[in-house]
Amino acid sequence: MKALTAKTPLIALLAYLTSSLPLSAQEGVWEIGARTLPPSVGVSEAFRQSQINTPKLDPTAMDFVPANDAQWLEHIEEKDAATAKVAVAIADALNVTIKEAELAGVKVHWLTPPETDAVHQNHLFVYIHGGAYVYNGGKAGLVEPSLIAARLRMPVVSIDYRMPPNHPAPAASDDVIAVWKALLETRPNNAMVMGGTSAGANITLASNQRFVELGLPVPAALYIGTPTVDLNAEAGDSRHLNEEADRILVTMGPFAVEAMNLYAGELGLDHPYVSPIFGDFANLPPSYLITGTRDLLLSDTVRAHRALRRAGVEAQLHVYEGQGHADYIVAMKTPESAEHYAELNRFVLEFLSAPSSEKEAAHLDTLPQAIPTSTAY
Amino acid sequence: MKALTAKTPLIALLAYLTSSLPLSAQEGVWEIGARTLPPSVGVSEAFRQSQINTPKLDPTAMDFVPANDAQWLEHIEEKDAATAKVAVAIADALNVTIKEAELAGVKVHWLTPPETDAVHQNHLFVYIHGGAYVYNGGKAGLVEPSLIAARLRMPVVSIDYRMPPNHPAPAASDDVIAVWKALLETRPNNAMVMGGTSAGANITLASNQRFVELGLPVPAALYIGTPTVDLNAEAGDSRHLNEEADRILVTMGPFAVEAMNLYAGELGLDHPYVSPIFGDFANLPPSYLITGTRDLLLSDTVRAHRALRRAGVEAQLHVYEGQGHADYIVAMKTPESAEHYAELNRFVLEFLSAPSSEKEAAHLDTLPQAIPTSTAY
Repeated sequence: MKALTAKTPLIALLAYLTSSLPLSAQEGVWEIGARTLPPSVGVSEAFRQSQINTPKLDPTAMDFVPANDAQWLEHIEEKDAATAKVAVAIADALNVTIKEAELAGVKVHWLTPPETDAVHQNHLFVYIHGGAYVYNGGKAGLVEPSLIAARLRMPVVSIDYRMPPNHPAPAASDDVIAVWKALLETRPNNAMVMGGTSAGANITLASNQRFVELGLPVPAALYIGTPTVDLNAEAGDSRHLNEEADRILVTMGPFAVEAMNLYAGELGLDHPYVSPIFGDFANLPPSYLITGTRDLLLSDTVRAHRALRRAGVEAQLHVYEGQGHADYIVAMKTPESAEHYAELNRFVLEFLSAPSSEKEAAHLDTLPQAIPTSTAY
Repeated sequence: MKALTAKTPLIALLAYLTSSLPLSAQEGVWEIGARTLPPSVGVSEAFRQSQINTPKLDPTAMDFVPANDAQWLEHIEEKDAATAKVAVAIADALNVTIKEAELAGVKVHWLTPPETDAVHQNHLFVYIHGGAYVYNGGKAGLVEPSLIAARLRMPVVSIDYRMPPNHPAPAASDDVIAVWKALLETRPNNAMVMGGTSAGANITLASNQRFVELGLPVPAALYIGTPTVDLNAEAGDSRHLNEEADRILVTMGPFAVEAMNLYAGELGLDHPYVSPIFGDFANLPPSYLITGTRDLLLSDTVRAHRALRRAGVEAQLHVYEGQGHADYIVAMKTPESAEHYAELNRFVLEFLSAPSSEKEAAHLDTLPQAIPTSTAY
């Protein structure tokens, strides 16, 4: 028995090579035992402390689902009001100015950093916020674009797209298309990059697939931060393996599933406008992707990375030890977060239009230090 | 209660921003519940079938540990004899010829593909086998180098380095250094790439860190397949989160821990020659890294990727949905495995010396089809 068990890896190899094993009654569904997860090693002390300071969340805490549209709207309004205060506080601390406007009938916010990098003078970051497809309308969507404006020292326009329950897909990508067409009237496509996190990264991919369908020029590069690319609730190893380990999403529970259903609406979960993993990745712009080892959407991110590369698109994947979903936003004060935005800046500068002499003036290595360390954001 | 719980992600954000939460008594150690893991989605049908055909392995199956050196040697000899048969069968099926030789007093195997790609005529892949630091001496180490020779259509030399229990670290990297010096007498450093999988990827990193220390020229590029970079047993989220989900390694159990201890020997687990994550990554060659969402060594791989990038080294990370440790070898007949070796070839060709006209002759897109589909390997 002992000699046999020690040979298990070879046996697994031989089993596959001969394909002689009977199918399991459960067709490959495995029951995985409970385990203990210590704080991550090999991360910065600041990130490790932020893990230690986070109480483990009970997955049943995500069971709440509003019962009807009125309750959804009330819940969303209450949550967004609280988030908007955080977003405005962060923008203020970073000296990022916010200006409300409208482009092609769609609400947007223009975010201007205290100083724009010389290399980005003619550039624009077109930001698409996340928030489970229902949250972060209005100023609540301005947390990450404030960070981007400040850390990349680049102007940002953030699209305040329409959302469920009143506006299911494809309203969000319709709005992005309208704004994109308007922006193309004002500057060349390769002076702009586009992207966002979570639902925002999904809508970025779906919108760009629609740009290609429509024959529109595409942005110079995309930012795909831990996206949902497959809105089927069970899709992806990490949604199972990282359940409870992801301190941000915790679980793909009833609330998230119902929000995704609301977003999909009549198009259904498998429509590429809803789940872009089922769309065509050919001719998409070069893409930067980020996720973490505790992220419920690790699988979505790596599936998108492979789909891009299989389509011949330049795509660069970053996976951070210990990070849950979008931890680079939640743990924004950590070296890992600064590192991520410096990497993102490096990536987009490779593809944005600029004379090479200006590129050399970017002083990329000093970027993280450009954030005022005295601000209490 | 419901309204509160639905706000949890925002609360987590605010909690971190204010850092006002008390430390948990367990300092961030989380108990994670049992879960159900279905077969992966978004993978090829061939890979999915190979998952379904794999019975779930009991982690206690990895508890066997030989009691003394004599038992270790007996166990290793028995296992290697079985693996050598598989390796030779695979080489035969791929028409890869094997020639035993010695370089600088170290045993090596030269592997020659049935046809060498024109672009690789002057190139050499210096391969370092894996096997938990104790297995795969002799011909047992020739499974992956046979695949590399056939799929990259490139000559390979595989280093049969010394191993525990008789030869702990740094014997393995000493042997790699001796072979590398001998090879440098025969061809330019940038005509060679180096790498391997698992323990082989660890020894690749440690050896290249030593090349830099010694002032030796380094290879054109490195192949870092799902390495152990930190030999401390508990290091890395994925060693906890993917326990039982990884169909190859299953768990970092007593056998693996004792094998790593044997390898570390008197140097100890934290010595950079043993755990290269603690070494200096500056001036290492451009590196290609691969892992999977079920890999026990996902964390080791992404930690190495970040260490390389922080040191300013070009490093490209690939994470495959559903793959356990080195599943690109175990599931060698899948499209994902062909894709991996095509990506690896693309990467090394970027950095290997060659006239650009020859590079264009590589016909990379046809590479996977170069494997004879009729062979029953």
